[in-house]
Amino acid sequence: MKKSFKLTALVGIALLAISPLSAKKIKWKLAETWPSTLTPLASPPAKLAELVKKMSDGKFIIKVEGKEKHKAPLGILDMVKGGQYQMGHSASYYWKGKDINMVWFTTVPFGMTPSEQYAWFYYGNGMKYMKEVYDKFGVYSYPGGNTGNQMGGWFRKEIKTVDDLKGLKMRIPGLAGEVMAKLGVNVTNIPAGELYTALDRGTIDALEWVGPGMDIKMGFHKVAKYYYTGWHEPASEMQFLINKKAFDKLPKKYQTMLETAMKAVSMDMYIENFAESAEAWAKMKKEYPDIQVKTFPLPVLKALKKASDEVYAEYAAKNPKFKEIWEDYKAYMKKVRAWSMMSQYYYLETSKELGITN
Amino acid sequence: MKKSFKLTALVGIALLAISPLSAKKIKWKLAETWPSTLTPLASPPAKLAELVKKMSDGKFIIKVEGKEKHKAPLGILDMVKGGQYQMGHSASYYWKGKDINMVWFTTVPFGMTPSEQYAWFYYGNGMKYMKEVYDKFGVYSYPGGNTGNQMGGWFRKEIKTVDDLKGLKMRIPGLAGEVMAKLGVNVTNIPAGELYTALDRGTIDALEWVGPGMDIKMGFHKVAKYYYTGWHEPASEMQFLINKKAFDKLPKKYQTMLETAMKAVSMDMYIENFAESAEAWAKMKKEYPDIQVKTFPLPVLKALKKASDEVYAEYAAKNPKFKEIWEDYKAYMKKVRAWSMMSQYYYLETSKELGITN
Repeated sequence: MKKSFKLTALVGIALLAISPLSAKKIKWKLAETWPSTLTPLASPPAKLAELVKKMSDGKFIIKVEGKEKHKAPLGILDMVKGGQYQMGHSASYYWKGKDINMVWFTTVPFGMTPSEQYAWFYYGNGMKYMKEVYDKFGVYSYPGGNTGNQMGGWFRKEIKTVDDLKGLKMRIPGLAGEVMAKLGVNVTNIPAGELYTALDRGTIDALEWVGPGMDIKMGFHKVAKYYYTGWHEPASEMQFLINKKAFDKLPKKYQTMLETAMKAVSMDMYIENFAESAEAWAKMKKEYPDIQVKTFPLPVLKALKKASDEVYAEYAAKNPKFKEIWEDYKAYMKKVRAWSMMSQYYYLETSKELGITN
Repeated sequence: MKKSFKLTALVGIALLAISPLSAKKIKWKLAETWPSTLTPLASPPAKLAELVKKMSDGKFIIKVEGKEKHKAPLGILDMVKGGQYQMGHSASYYWKGKDINMVWFTTVPFGMTPSEQYAWFYYGNGMKYMKEVYDKFGVYSYPGGNTGNQMGGWFRKEIKTVDDLKGLKMRIPGLAGEVMAKLGVNVTNIPAGELYTALDRGTIDALEWVGPGMDIKMGFHKVAKYYYTGWHEPASEMQFLINKKAFDKLPKKYQTMLETAMKAVSMDMYIENFAESAEAWAKMKKEYPDIQVKTFPLPVLKALKKASDEVYAEYAAKNPKFKEIWEDYKAYMKKVRAWSMMSQYYYLETSKELGITN
């Protein structure tokens, strides 16, 4: 008895001596801005948690909580900064009140396309600026999925001239709202749950949401027939936020798992939204053949561009970092846009000329 | 002495008892079609190996060998099938001689764009067909990075009519070569190392390669001034190949690491090539301002489209699986192209009208 007890004890000590790192479970929590069922926005965190769990053999667990749980959809940055959550998933431009430079990491009016913006992030100065801007919050930020170019919105009446915008009541948040306001639009903010009724009853004349994939769930196509192409959010990128202290003390292998999985699920979201939008648009058009896809007339686009440049110039005058990033962004965009035109635009134009499109 | 020896022995036994799985190193080899220094094509395997090594704490090692080592750039599928290499990195359409359906997983003339094709892979039937076609080789296949829309090639003379193609000597491989041959082009194949001299001396009149990022390394812009936009390889996807038996006996966590890292590095390659192409184009245009970017005239494009459809119809008549995939592909493309036009095309057209492009 005594001998076998000693044996067991020794084996036990040996196991303890080598096991603390490999056996200790790491449990994190991630708060996301969206309801946890709202695909494709809620897909990246859910997929990230699943991948990290599998890659770590169940030893690194991330519990994802949607807004139905934490009730603070726009409090994600604060909660990750404060450490209540180790991670967050949201959109950077929600914190433009804390620092206007946050807008560069989501999307800006007349800005870069998804391919261009990812090129700026990874092969230009985008990630460098992202790190700088988030540094003061004690938070790391990573791209977290892209919606692609968003639609310009649902309008009850056709917009034929710049004057048609004057006095128009529209739900359009962010920088785009500031641009529209310069052209006389009465920009309003209305909670998501009340938008359909507001548009149906004419409380508002127009609204922008995302694109067919997400818009179809809201039903806007049933109450407004003009669907305008986008100019204001050409590449809305979501954001993963990570508390710096929490990340820095992770074992290196878990840091790499996180970074690799974040990149994989970001690409997934872009493709998921693209596929869902194509499906949803086919469905909308079939069920509501009266919907008209419109591009704003050139004078309206010119006025929007001019107003956008004014908004940029105003922020640049107040904020030197904004000016610095804006100049870097514009120079990079000029270079990549030339390639977008040669590679992407002319291919789709050829397709149009040949009647390959519907 | 005796006691301490016993203690050491017991601890040793305890360690051995729990360590075999965690300590055993897995060593794989990956053969790639390209020289191991040829970025961006060689980037995905190199980055994959690095990520997997880090995520596994150095326990899963993939040794990457370029064509300078194995000397069999077009033998990758055979070597992975035979088990000499557990993995490969190449392009699926190189095996069209073994099965014509391999072409669907790289790109096809007048086919889908990268966003569309990824949507087909992951949210349509693309991955299902890829699995089916590779199954008989005992190999799994995964997307491995995309070049985006390739340029239509460098031409010494301008192509003004369909007749200008007759007798033209051009290096253009794959289905696109079959299409060109139908229009009277004298399609030749010349090793990469001899292409520059052949074009310079007029041994050939034209050639297609990839796009500015890779073309600039070959120097074609120094000896031909017409640079045509693409129609024949709108979304060339690279391919990771994995020997099935080797993959199936991997621990689950390593399988997930591989799959996650393959997706992350594929996205990286698309962006790397996009960024490099933009840089290279800016450089070429500055140093050789005479270069003219051209789109084939509409009658030439129509003739190319008609010839492409004939090539497809001929393969479909001989191969029922080709017919099945072609029909699925066309139906999916029709749906996603409508969304590409609304989201991507009109945005770039707006950009063009506003003079944002250079």
